[in-house]
Amino acid sequence: MTKIMSPEELEQELRAIGDAQYHDKHPFHKLLHGGKLNKGQVQAWALNRYCYQSAVPRKDAALISRCHDRELRRDWVHRIHDHDGFGDEEGGIERWLVLTDGLGLDRDYVISTKGALPATRFAVEAYVNFVREKTLVEAVASSLTELFAPKIHAERISSMLKNYDFISDDVMQYFRRRLKQAPDDAAFALDYVKRHARTPEAQTAVLDALKFKTNVLWAQLDALYLAYVDPAMIPPGAFVPAGPDG
Amino acid sequence: MTKIMSPEELEQELRAIGDAQYHDKHPFHKLLHGGKLNKGQVQAWALNRYCYQSAVPRKDAALISRCHDRELRRDWVHRIHDHDGFGDEEGGIERWLVLTDGLGLDRDYVISTKGALPATRFAVEAYVNFVREKTLVEAVASSLTELFAPKIHAERISSMLKNYDFISDDVMQYFRRRLKQAPDDAAFALDYVKRHARTPEAQTAVLDALKFKTNVLWAQLDALYLAYVDPAMIPPGAFVPAGPDG
Repeated sequence: MTKIMSPEELEQELRAIGDAQYHDKHPFHKLLHGGKLNKGQVQAWALNRYCYQSAVPRKDAALISRCHDRELRRDWVHRIHDHDGFGDEEGGIERWLVLTDGLGLDRDYVISTKGALPATRFAVEAYVNFVREKTLVEAVASSLTELFAPKIHAERISSMLKNYDFISDDVMQYFRRRLKQAPDDAAFALDYVKRHARTPEAQTAVLDALKFKTNVLWAQLDALYLAYVDPAMIPPGAFVPAGPDG
Repeated sequence: MTKIMSPEELEQELRAIGDAQYHDKHPFHKLLHGGKLNKGQVQAWALNRYCYQSAVPRKDAALISRCHDRELRRDWVHRIHDHDGFGDEEGGIERWLVLTDGLGLDRDYVISTKGALPATRFAVEAYVNFVREKTLVEAVASSLTELFAPKIHAERISSMLKNYDFISDDVMQYFRRRLKQAPDDAAFALDYVKRHARTPEAQTAVLDALKFKTNVLWAQLDALYLAYVDPAMIPPGAFVPAGPDG
């Protein structure tokens, strides 16, 4: 890729990455949405995914800590609030804990992340470190999986409610809220990337950043599949479901 | 220091550092408050100090980016708002620019930090990096110069208004606001440090963190003194006052 793309072409390439390798293509995702997992497997998913949710504010703070542009910092900081909460707003991490509560998991155990798969933690921390170390435009670009998230969240709400009797409407608040938040955030980040990646090298770096991020998400589902689906090989120390029914 | 201190003893030691080496003891500070500087020298001070002000949100975001405790993150994030502004609140950096505007400095030139002394920038970035790299309790402790700030700010408002005919009340908003913000922040950080520095090694590290921070502030005034007071040796590229009257 040695030729410069127009901002519109860059957007097309970014969207093509989502079509090719967003984690909605992963077999674990299909099992989850298709109602093919048992309660213990859904618990394992929610418990592991907590690591990701709880790391997002650190990732966003890492971006702000590197940003000399006050206007960008002023916008980006709401992402910390969306997850950590702010004032009366409880935030997405709290809403995720409502889900893990609803699945019968002990809250302190979830927060400790002690039962999470090592591969989950490695992937999540790789994301935080990527944002800490790469260029600012790559850090922004790595958030662009949010372009593809609303579709997955909308499906998740309806399919999980339909397919699992242990999932009730009130534990799905997290996804309902993200339906509203993610599109605004994705539009902002996409606009930023289109305006700031103005050399072939920067555009390649931005595409690689989004691929990296899809890998972060994919690796988490790979780890879940290996440990809890097939061959169901749970590593030492990781969460062991009480049984198929949790 | 191999014996563990009580939290109260630790607080006394921290306060003693302020008494010994906070930058209100610096000759430049005494000239500034005593009305002994000309307008060009006050411009140089405000222009250089902008580097510090504008780095504070990056420093606070660096702290949040390393913090796995959601409650601490939820509290600390207001410091980013205090400086960057949030919603209708303009923030401390904007108020600092009101001061540099009032001193007749070009706003874009100030924001570019191109006229700042290299030693200022090195000191400021050393602070950001310290918070990025040291333990969390050391990062928190490095904010504790705020214990000593309200006294300096109160004095500054009255003495600068009295002593300088080019300083008007409306450009001193920054300091007036910090009179309210700094004591709450300092009390929170002091309580955190007293609760979390519970080994002799951690207590020594915390005291060293505060000494480090006083050095960051002191070094900035040293650089100003050398460049603009005595021997008034301005390094290449740094701000050159138009004349004693700015």
